[in-house]
This record gives sequence, C-alpha cells and structure tokens, in this order.
Amino acid sequence: MHAIAIHGGAGAVPRASLSAEREQRFRAGLAAALDGGYAVLEKGGTSLDAVATAVRILEDDPLFNAGHGAALTRDGAAELDAAIMDGQQMRAGAVASVRHVKNPIDLARRVMEKSRHVLLVGAGAEEFALEEQFALVPNHYFRTAERLQQLQSEQRGERMSELLPTSRGTVGAVALDGAGNLAAATSTGGMTNKRPGRVGDSPIIGAGTYAKNGVCAVSATGHGEYFIRAVAAHHVCAAVQYRGLSLQQAVRETGLAVTGPNCLGNLSAGENMFTNIDDRIVTMEAVVKRPVVVNDAIAIRSMVYLTLSYDHRVVDGAVAHQFMGKVKHTLENWTESVL
Amino acid sequence: MHAIAIHGGAGAVPRASLSAEREQRFRAGLAAALDGGYAVLEKGGTSLDAVATAVRILEDDPLFNAGHGAALTRDGAAELDAAIMDGQQMRAGAVASVRHVKNPIDLARRVMEKSRHVLLVGAGAEEFALEEQFALVPNHYFRTAERLQQLQSEQRGERMSELLPTSRGTVGAVALDGAGNLAAATSTGGMTNKRPGRVGDSPIIGAGTYAKNGVCAVSATGHGEYFIRAVAAHHVCAAVQYRGLSLQQAVRETGLAVTGPNCLGNLSAGENMFTNIDDRIVTMEAVVKRPVVVNDAIAIRSMVYLTLSYDHRVVDGAVAHQFMGKVKHTLENWTESVL
Repeated sequence: MHAIAIHGGAGAVPRASLSAEREQRFRAGLAAALDGGYAVLEKGGTSLDAVATAVRILEDDPLFNAGHGAALTRDGAAELDAAIMDGQQMRAGAVASVRHVKNPIDLARRVMEKSRHVLLVGAGAEEFALEEQFALVPNHYFRTAERLQQLQSEQRGERMSELLPTSRGTVGAVALDGAGNLAAATSTGGMTNKRPGRVGDSPIIGAGTYAKNGVCAVSATGHGEYFIRAVAAHHVCAAVQYRGLSLQQAVRETGLAVTGPNCLGNLSAGENMFTNIDDRIVTMEAVVKRPVVVNDAIAIRSMVYLTLSYDHRVVDGAVAHQFMGKVKHTLENWTESVL
Repeated sequence: MHAIAIHGGAGAVPRASLSAEREQRFRAGLAAALDGGYAVLEKGGTSLDAVATAVRILEDDPLFNAGHGAALTRDGAAELDAAIMDGQQMRAGAVASVRHVKNPIDLARRVMEKSRHVLLVGAGAEEFALEEQFALVPNHYFRTAERLQQLQSEQRGERMSELLPTSRGTVGAVALDGAGNLAAATSTGGMTNKRPGRVGDSPIIGAGTYAKNGVCAVSATGHGEYFIRAVAAHHVCAAVQYRGLSLQQAVRETGLAVTGPNCLGNLSAGENMFTNIDDRIVTMEAVVKRPVVVNDAIAIRSMVYLTLSYDHRVVDGAVAHQFMGKVKHTLENWTESVL
C-alpha cells in the first residue's frame, strides 16, 4: 500500500475574490504535485522521493508560497525555509533563511544525506549548496508581481491580502511507500512582510515537519510561531504513540492546542488529513491520493480540491473549538463522496 | 519552593589533562552562575529572570562554550545560538547563527518579549538587536586563544581536544520559582569546527530547550543533531505528561534514544538532573541548587561539581545502555550524600 497527501498552505482569501479561472489554476497546481509524487510511489519509489517530488513541483509553481512565488520579507526579498524527514531512519535535513537556492527542499535533503548536520541557515547553507554543485539563482527569481502587491497590501495595513492565498502559507507533503516507510517534507517562504531572518516552523523538526515509521508523518502549515511553541508535529506523533489516540484525534487536539486568537493552523498528517471548513474564506488544504487507510479503516480516495477555511481574523478559542468539531463529520462526508 | 539547575556542557576532556587549578576555575564559574540564578529566586524573582541570569554569567565566562569563549566554526569565527522558554505562558524566543551579540540569551528573551516571532537567525537577528538598542561587539570578542587552539587541534584530526571541555558543549539553566512557574534557557557556540550556518538543538524549541508548567523544564547539551532528530526536550515532557513516567525515567529513556554511536548527550531537566558517569573522562554536568523535590520525593540539596563522564569515542548502543543503568544509582548516592 502506498499513499501521499499534500497541502498548499493555510492562508486564506475571501471566496468572492477568487475567480473560477484562478481556482482552476490552483487546482491544477495541486493536482500536478499530487500526481507527480504519487507517480514516484506507483513506480516503487520511496516516500522520501515522493514527498521531495511533490514539494519541488509546488516550489516551482508561482501560485504557492514556496520557491518561485514565495511570500516576501518586509524588505521585499524572498527568504526560504524547508525540511525533510525520513521516518524509517529518523534522519532529517533542513535549511532556513536561504535566498538563492531554487529548490530549498532539495538542499534540505542534501543536508540530510551529505552533511553531518540537520539544520543549516543563511549564507552557510548557501556555501554548502555551492560545494554540492547547486546552481544559485538571483533572489528576484522568487519574486512575483503578485507577491510584491501582497506585501504592499500588508504594509498598507490591510490585514489579509485578497490577491493570493497563503500569506501565511507553506507547501508540504507526507507519504507512505510500499516498504512501509513514512516521510514528510515542507517548504515555505514564510509570512508575508516577515522580518528578515525570521524562521517559522517549517524547517524545525518536531514543529512543522516530522515523520516516524509506524506512527505518522506530519507537515504543518499555519502561523508558524504557534506551531513552534506547541512543538506541534511531535505533539501529534506523541499523542498517537503514547496515548493511543487515533491520528485524527491527535491532529484535532493539536490543532486546538495550536489554534488560538488570531491564529489559523492546519496540519497534514500521513495516512490522514486535516482541514478547516467555513463558508466565507477559501484556502488550499490537504490533498490525499488514494488509497489511504486511517485507523478506523476508512479508505479515502483521490481528492484534489480547494476547501472553505476559517477566517483567522475573527477566530477565538470558543469558535475554534466549535469549528474543529466539524472536522470529523466533514472528513466522513468526503470519504463517502469519493468511495 | 524555588529551585535552579544549570549545566556547563557535555563535552569531555581526559581527567589527566585537567589540573587542579583549572578544575577549580570551572567549579568557580559554575558556582557563580548557580548562585547568581538562585539569588534571583531567593529575592522572589521569576524563573525566567533566574535562568537568564545564570546563563548570562556562563556566557561571560570564557571557560564555557557560550558567548565569550564560544567554540569556533571551521572558519575561526564564533556563531552563537540561544533560546529561552517560559513554561507558564508557553512563550519562547530564540536566536541562531548570530556573530555580534554579546549575550545571545538576552536577545533570545527580547525576541520572545518584543517581536512577533520565536526564532530569528543571522543578520536579521542582529538587525533586530540593533533596533532594540543592543550594542553589537566585534566577532573577536568571543574568540579566545584556547578555543583557537582547540579548533586547530580538531582540524589536525585529533578527535577530542584536551584543551577545554565542551567541544560539543553548551550552557543551560532550568528553574522553578516561588509562583510555580518553570523556565528553561540554553546558550551555545555549537560544535568546534562546525560549518558556518550550522544550527544545533539549543535554539530549537522542543529539541534543546523546553518548559511547560506542571510538567518539566529541559535544557539539553550534547551532539545537537541527535537531539533535534529525537525532539529530545519535548520527548521528555511528553513522556512525563502522557505516559506517567517520572522525570528521571523520562530523561533516562530520552537519553537512551538520543545516545547512539559516537554521541554523547546529557539533559538537565527542571526539578531534577541527569548525568553520565565514567572514570576516564571529565565534563561539566548538571548542577542543582536546593531544595528540589522530584517525583519520588527525593530532596536534592545544593551541589556544585565536576563529574566523570562517558567517553563518546567508544560508546555504542550496548555500552550506552549499561552505562545509563548507572544513573539512578548515582543520583541516589548523591542524594544520600547531601541529605
């Protein structure tokens, strides 16, 4: 059995501002990443190769907040973070605050496989990239006109851009391969208008990215500072491994722990998925390629979609709780609709 | 009740190479940090202030691998990492790969208290420092003649320096204040001869630093890459909170998970301590200021010491296990000896 799930970020735009044409472009981008990663698994490839492939496709797509088309810092530059983890050997590699590496997920993997280290940042990470024969690109490769508009919009004090989703977005993938090995990968440009040097949860093993065979693989997206403080990805794994929660329960509980005032968070957990639903706001969410069997033996088939997501401008603890309560129901509905 | 524990790093030197005079200097440095932190608590100060004070004293002491006297990168520069966490509000701040901040622990705290972020790295972290009125220092402020010798020794292929302990060292403190609030702080120059841009476990919330009221506070020291992959500090807390292990059991188990071939790791956990004992190698270990009540109601009084530590050159899984088995016995002996 093999399976892959991806996400395209937790950011949100009002549905009204998303044209059918743009929605179709997002769907196509998610489908390309999902199919690319899944094809690796179908050919007998490893989960590591599958998640790296899916994330690389999303990095190259300017619509998603990672690689080309990344969200910009307050100085108008792109600073990129990425991590990958191998759930079999518990190896991991990550890079943060790199400015000239076309596909940060590939550099994260190289750190895992070729260095003595787990996390390299900034110019030191790029020195390693050069030693490893990566061709660096100018920073403007990452910058798109839309991201620049989004930055300017944020800097004018508009709290949520209507130009693009994922002002706090990220891309990620989790996969299970035929050998039973889990892997997770996450890549991001971080928050729009972030301070240079700010590192979010994506490259932090245990916060935004984690994988452990026999337990779960997690790639998170949302307001990274909340995920770091909660050690969110490891929290999910620990709840499954030590408390006997189902992955779905663990993710929901962690989501509750992470989600506080003014915080929107989603987690994509291997062999399952997690999403937020509301009727006002649109975001990319977890996308799962079949067949995935979750703890309670629900099989989820191929799904590529944009979901309606909670508006983080008005969320508070009570509302978040109520909102989270919808998830299982929704998951079941999806399952029924595609079986 | 209030308590503080500190550590001065996991690195090791052969006991034979440590003169009585040098040992006395190490003991005095540890005592100064311990007394400084404890004095904060005695005056009714917060655990956050106590751990910051203790760590700042160790950063200023050239014998310890943090701040002045930090281990050097392969290029001969100092690159510093630090983190602090507030177990009451689950706030955290961290900096990594900074080169001009005299007391990185103070900047980590400022990130926690004055920025929207948790982790800032490199030049962006220093930009924040300048905005916050920190006076930057030249990088050579951190560099000592002994650290330069240690770097050259490592670069000549000598696997363990005999000049200074803590070639993989770090300093850290955990404290419990009268209000029942836990805090943890860790600061380091990282591994001697590390690649520029390498970030270890110290500034990673959940890996090298973590605090959660009612559970524990953890500051780790050792081969950071192993601690990152194991999400060691959060692993300890999760084992206590979710599995009902005593802190001592949780730390021992995590130590076993972290310690593999060629890896030396120690954890200093709030309300308790953890150390490695052998008869060949010397290192600074956890130091606890009384009174501390651990789960099984053992009271540990004031202890300032250098312990004998396991030689990570020859450790392997089996030996590590046998070795770890000594810890409880030793802890009990210490307890008895000071009660």
